[in-house]
Amino acid sequence: MPIPQIIIDPLPRTMEMIFDAETRRRLENLGTLITFEPEPPTEEELDRVLGETDVLIGQTTLPSSRLERAPKLRAIFNVEGNFLPNIDYEYCFAHGIRVLVASPAFATSVAEMALAFALDLARDISAADRDFRHGVEKYGLESNRNSFLFTGCKVGLIGFGDLARAFRALLSPFRCPVKAHDPWMPDRLLLAHDCLPATLDEVLSTSDAVFVFASVTSENQGFLGKREFSLLRKGAIFVLMSRAAVVDFEALTEAVESGRIKAATDVFPVEPFAADHRIRTLPNVLLSAHRTGGMKEAFLEIGRLVVSDLELVLRGLPPISCRVAQPETVGRMRSKPVENS
Amino acid sequence: MPIPQIIIDPLPRTMEMIFDAETRRRLENLGTLITFEPEPPTEEELDRVLGETDVLIGQTTLPSSRLERAPKLRAIFNVEGNFLPNIDYEYCFAHGIRVLVASPAFATSVAEMALAFALDLARDISAADRDFRHGVEKYGLESNRNSFLFTGCKVGLIGFGDLARAFRALLSPFRCPVKAHDPWMPDRLLLAHDCLPATLDEVLSTSDAVFVFASVTSENQGFLGKREFSLLRKGAIFVLMSRAAVVDFEALTEAVESGRIKAATDVFPVEPFAADHRIRTLPNVLLSAHRTGGMKEAFLEIGRLVVSDLELVLRGLPPISCRVAQPETVGRMRSKPVENS
Amino acid sequence: MPIPQIIIDPLPRTMEMIFDAETRRRLENLGTLITFEPEPPTEEELDRVLGETDVLIGQTTLPSSRLERAPKLRAIFNVEGNFLPNIDYEYCFAHGIRVLVASPAFATSVAEMALAFALDLARDISAADRDFRHGVEKYGLESNRNSFLFTGCKVGLIGFGDLARAFRALLSPFRCPVKAHDPWMPDRLLLAHDCLPATLDEVLSTSDAVFVFASVTSENQGFLGKREFSLLRKGAIFVLMSRAAVVDFEALTEAVESGRIKAATDVFPVEPFAADHRIRTLPNVLLSAHRTGGMKEAFLEIGRLVVSDLELVLRGLPPISCRVAQPETVGRMRSKPVENS
Amino acid sequence: MPIPQIIIDPLPRTMEMIFDAETRRRLENLGTLITFEPEPPTEEELDRVLGETDVLIGQTTLPSSRLERAPKLRAIFNVEGNFLPNIDYEYCFAHGIRVLVASPAFATSVAEMALAFALDLARDISAADRDFRHGVEKYGLESNRNSFLFTGCKVGLIGFGDLARAFRALLSPFRCPVKAHDPWMPDRLLLAHDCLPATLDEVLSTSDAVFVFASVTSENQGFLGKREFSLLRKGAIFVLMSRAAVVDFEALTEAVESGRIKAATDVFPVEPFAADHRIRTLPNVLLSAHRTGGMKEAFLEIGRLVVSDLELVLRGLPPISCRVAQPETVGRMRSKPVENS
Repeated sequence: MPIPQIIIDPLPRTMEMIFDAETRRRLENLGTLITFEPEPPTEEELDRVLGETDVLIGQTTLPSSRLERAPKLRAIFNVEGNFLPNIDYEYCFAHGIRVLVASPAFATSVAEMALAFALDLARDISAADRDFRHGVEKYGLESNRNSFLFTGCKVGLIGFGDLARAFRALLSPFRCPVKAHDPWMPDRLLLAHDCLPATLDEVLSTSDAVFVFASVTSENQGFLGKREFSLLRKGAIFVLMSRAAVVDFEALTEAVESGRIKAATDVFPVEPFAADHRIRTLPNVLLSAHRTGGMKEAFLEIGRLVVSDLELVLRGLPPISCRVAQPETVGRMRSKPVENS
Repeated sequence: MPIPQIIIDPLPRTMEMIFDAETRRRLENLGTLITFEPEPPTEEELDRVLGETDVLIGQTTLPSSRLERAPKLRAIFNVEGNFLPNIDYEYCFAHGIRVLVASPAFATSVAEMALAFALDLARDISAADRDFRHGVEKYGLESNRNSFLFTGCKVGLIGFGDLARAFRALLSPFRCPVKAHDPWMPDRLLLAHDCLPATLDEVLSTSDAVFVFASVTSENQGFLGKREFSLLRKGAIFVLMSRAAVVDFEALTEAVESGRIKAATDVFPVEPFAADHRIRTLPNVLLSAHRTGGMKEAFLEIGRLVVSDLELVLRGLPPISCRVAQPETVGRMRSKPVENS
Repeated sequence: MPIPQIIIDPLPRTMEMIFDAETRRRLENLGTLITFEPEPPTEEELDRVLGETDVLIGQTTLPSSRLERAPKLRAIFNVEGNFLPNIDYEYCFAHGIRVLVASPAFATSVAEMALAFALDLARDISAADRDFRHGVEKYGLESNRNSFLFTGCKVGLIGFGDLARAFRALLSPFRCPVKAHDPWMPDRLLLAHDCLPATLDEVLSTSDAVFVFASVTSENQGFLGKREFSLLRKGAIFVLMSRAAVVDFEALTEAVESGRIKAATDVFPVEPFAADHRIRTLPNVLLSAHRTGGMKEAFLEIGRLVVSDLELVLRGLPPISCRVAQPETVGRMRSKPVENS
Repeated sequence: MPIPQIIIDPLPRTMEMIFDAETRRRLENLGTLITFEPEPPTEEELDRVLGETDVLIGQTTLPSSRLERAPKLRAIFNVEGNFLPNIDYEYCFAHGIRVLVASPAFATSVAEMALAFALDLARDISAADRDFRHGVEKYGLESNRNSFLFTGCKVGLIGFGDLARAFRALLSPFRCPVKAHDPWMPDRLLLAHDCLPATLDEVLSTSDAVFVFASVTSENQGFLGKREFSLLRKGAIFVLMSRAAVVDFEALTEAVESGRIKAATDVFPVEPFAADHRIRTLPNVLLSAHRTGGMKEAFLEIGRLVVSDLELVLRGLPPISCRVAQPETVGRMRSKPVENS
């Protein structure tokens, strides 16, 4: 069998960021690596290599005109984390080229953060720490006037992909009844994860703690707006983990400002976020600068996911660890890529 | 069977705080209640009732001279949360009087808070929120320079009673290897809860996250001092959940100040705590004003625990839900009672 | 501190049966052992040693007349498995002598067997094997006419002590709704183990699979009779794990004979059981000759439980691993001891 | 949107067998059903309908010559349970036709049976019942000479697909260390299910209980033969759940006959199995006539899986509940179909 040729064009990642020493060794054992770093390949460079390339790791733009020049190509691994409109997916499906994304790498990191945010809001932890630093802390019961026990509270999940499932697993010792809404998932899958399938309005109006894990698609931009926030129960907590584009951020800010709900958000309509936005000063919000996924450990996990699947693909087996692009949905994804890690 | 007489002397709790309507009804069905509130009974009042009392709920001082006047007494329920030196325990053991404390009522509330504290420290959550409020937030990977994934990290537990066990259960989906140290617990109990038994020094020196749940006893006051903090790994997190008296608080402050560790504490040597103590300004600490247990829900749970056991005791069955005073250890407890809720 | 003196009178067990080499070594490190084997001590032998004995392991008869001669006695460990009427328990309680039984040693062995029995009955496993051996096996769907999926079926538990709790844990991946009946246990304990508290009749009439773990007491002999078996649903399975004395065995036999239920039993009114009893020939019963607990591993676990608690007791700490005799209930126990292992 | 046309050709299943009333209703709501029962469609019948067919449920032979006449075909659901060589898979992959099999329907039923078999062998349950029926039962310890506790024993899994994963979940409360071997699965997937990846020989030689869940493929027929059985530990149990074709059945019989191992098998080289085969008389084997999967409940689950995925497919979403044919592996499957349920 000829030695496979593997192109790597990792931007906005770097080789060092996504491959630890051991994973790098495993990768090098799989074939001949041609790495383009820190700059993506030029047209000429691509021209020279595409003809003999078996696998591409990275976000290289791949219209059919380029794909046609890569007759041996078997798999493309996105290491940024979102399916992007950089590839002619139709061409890939018709020609048996697997397109994969290493997004499950972020599940652990995001899931534990979602739980942390919820506990912080339910128990007023950062708010109480702030009071302590200002010398105005309250002790005992008095300090817990606005707190509630997270254990056993009613949880609602919006979106039930990799991230939400990792989060659901963390909830299990808390004995929370969980409702979930995801229009792409069948009821039986939700039930198999101990979630009660529910409409969006039901999730919003009956939960003590609502978590948004939904990706942005062509169909759901801004679907959480003024009406939806008004459905939340007084005192509920709202945790936004996925993308700012799924909410009307001003409506969220107003809901927090009114004091009706507490909220945590990891994402903002523009990042860096406006220095003077009033949400920065509200007492009942927890602010996180797009930092729940972007950890050293998560980036190294990307490398492990890719190499694990690449080992299978090169042995003629189906990939398992990365998420596989599905013809039905890949064209509907609308997440903006990160510009740098 | 004569109707049992039940004295209630709830200070520092109140009837309303510990009994919700349903529990109150169950309690009233069990016998004749004689309640002393808001003041504890005077000597004369006690004199009038002790002779016919079957059960006492509260923290009434009960030297043998009083117990001798209560020949029908079968059970005493402490609703403050700690075994106190207010009772002649020897007398009770010799006369078959059950002494119980409703301390498991706090386990849920404390356990979820311990996890919240650890997640906050591991992922720098309140620190990042503080930066955001000051307009100096960092985004993505850069913001996570000092963070680590809590999932899978090495956990060490000091003390393995009710609180620690409730906490251990919350850890299970995080797949953390857990070491535990508790000189009162046999190895097999620790192993049965998926903890590796370890010495104190081993727990301190090998864990990424150390949690202190140990009660104060006659033997362990200030047992976590300068030497012990120096054993902690650089970057470790230290979470103090039980009583300030088990640590040398200045040594803890120094360890945090040095930047070697991050810490969270719910307890302080004196409460309210000194307004000018320098720990209030350190960036790598999370401060909580003795608020992890004192929740409305936990206080109502006290009532439920008491009534559940009282129902058994009055049917001639052993109590199950409260913690039962043990002759071997009850005399060694040294927790200060709370002054008010 | 003087070296403790430990008497061991293991009959019907033997030293070898209950102590493996390592546990034996731990035991020997705890004090001076005086072992009576294979015969229990005579009155004279006891006379010689009682005065200096700190701990007794075994089933020695101990009326107050003997206990009075043992002023140093701190703990008595039953290694047979049931609290027997061989001890003046009142004396022990009044004098602070711990009486313990190593019965949790059998929990693992009995629990997995209970599950095995239920799966066998639900899926007709031994019956189908019998058919196969007789050359009349049926294949596929046809062979499963009387079978049902155990996963998800309605389970009812009668008795909720150590054995039932160990069994409950094994059920968790089967997602069975579980009702439990135990008049000595508070609802909250049952709920904490994910069981719905229920009356006996409710358990019997609404379950697909009923398990009896209840010990024999002065109050419940023969409490499962004709009326109770008639409450079982047609096709239900009935698994008897504790003692034959809790059922009317003829009524059980009739219920099986009628074909209305399937049953498994590990216990019989007399053992060895009547050679000509008609239950031996019924197709829808699974017969087990009092063999669910009596395994080598379980007996060695007895030794480990005893030594683990003895280590605590001799350090002045409360025992934890064995079951502690409770003043309220120890006098009500009526299990017959085994005559030999 | 035009009403979808759905062909159903269920043989060897029947409509009644796989669709309960509610699922049938959901199916009828999805489009126009054209059912061929009890006979599969003739060429002429197919000719009349293929042109307008959107979905086919069943095992209809579909060479490219037929597929070309079905330009609207989007999905094919196998309801027998195995990918068969009845379809031109290449054509389907190139034309975006989803091919699915409802095999996960059997996972629950097979998994609980595998556990039941193992418990029976470890604890000698059906053997002891046989003795009891023959009046030669042994009581207590003596009856357990060849038994071992399943809890905590070393488990080895061969094959780690749907069935093995469902089985792994049932093991979790037994605290068994589990090794798994599956050449199509990456280590990280095995680790994520709490299995240690291992070679075949390692699984065989170090386990107390070995379970075979591997499907038959073009590569593994008869891969468990004399050499492999000789690697098993003395006293080990061997449970064959998948297909007889993966073992050398005579070698298995010899291993059982020698007394070195105990075994359970649900499958036989020919079914019905030879009436005079000596394995039928061996004491240390458990025989099951291909009955672990074929339950009423499992067949109805097939219908639910199909309809759940069909609802997604017709909404333009990817299927989730059935297993999707993978281009890399579908051509290697070699399971014989069942002839009738």
